[in-house]
Amino acid sequence: MSIDFSPIGTIHTPFDDLKGMPIQPSGAKDVKGIIEVFQEYEQGLNDLEGFSHIILLYHFNKSRGFDLMVTPFLDTQKRGLFSTRAPRRPNPIGLSIVEILGREKNKIFIKGIDVLNKTPLLDIKPYVPRFDTKEVSASGWLEQTQDDSVSMKSDDRFIEKQS
Amino acid sequence: MSIDFSPIGTIHTPFDDLKGMPIQPSGAKDVKGIIEVFQEYEQGLNDLEGFSHIILLYHFNKSRGFDLMVTPFLDTQKRGLFSTRAPRRPNPIGLSIVEILGREKNKIFIKGIDVLNKTPLLDIKPYVPRFDTKEVSASGWLEQTQDDSVSMKSDDRFIEKQS
Repeated sequence: MSIDFSPIGTIHTPFDDLKGMPIQPSGAKDVKGIIEVFQEYEQGLNDLEGFSHIILLYHFNKSRGFDLMVTPFLDTQKRGLFSTRAPRRPNPIGLSIVEILGREKNKIFIKGIDVLNKTPLLDIKPYVPRFDTKEVSASGWLEQTQDDSVSMKSDDRFIEKQS
Repeated sequence: MSIDFSPIGTIHTPFDDLKGMPIQPSGAKDVKGIIEVFQEYEQGLNDLEGFSHIILLYHFNKSRGFDLMVTPFLDTQKRGLFSTRAPRRPNPIGLSIVEILGREKNKIFIKGIDVLNKTPLLDIKPYVPRFDTKEVSASGWLEQTQDDSVSMKSDDRFIEKQS
């Protein structure tokens, strides 16, 4: 069973290359980007400026294939794929929560973005603390290392070698 | 440009009908469900039990079409679609953060689920406070009403009439 999606816009960021890119918004706190939604969807952005944060869902369009066990950036041993945020997944959908700086027509100016330039955008949702902030009792293999995400940079391990 | 995804499993919940379903996990705190991932992906669930919460991305497979301005459950006036969590969207991808109770092979037992029974699952990601908990300064039109999501129930407004 196949599900067909189409981008609703493009995420513009300073990162043309995976090498050196932050691995999470937590490491890209001051990095600015622009979301450009296709003009046919502009009206759907109304009221979004009222929120300080939004959830972006996007297509990891440079990722090919996947492995069920992967060594994440923040660990040295292999972990089950779905316990990681690795971009090579059966459905390569990325999720980042970013801050809104402002909006002009079909462009949203954002801060704290950690994706490649020209990433295809699939959806925008408002970040709502009542829905999206959870008091966790455990963070698994990331318990000790999640704070390292602030300084950790990406490499090309999650792009399948194509030749 | 079309992007092809396929479900990686199914979300089983007590809700066979939209009417009376909680509109957010915040209103379904004690509702239990089972995620059944197709066996070919079972190994990818390793290490997930270490996390208390996971992010589910799924396909709103009962939603047809979309409007750019919608009246959300928690409001009485029309809002821009992307400032809402309405299921009728250009790419009908749903997002819920739920609690893990346990795992048995390819099944994950969860709590706090607010989706229809047999919803096709697209992805599972670990919920990581460092990445996913944000201190917001504004929650837009939901500022006053997000707490009402605890008691608000769904109706069929977001299923397009098909006849």
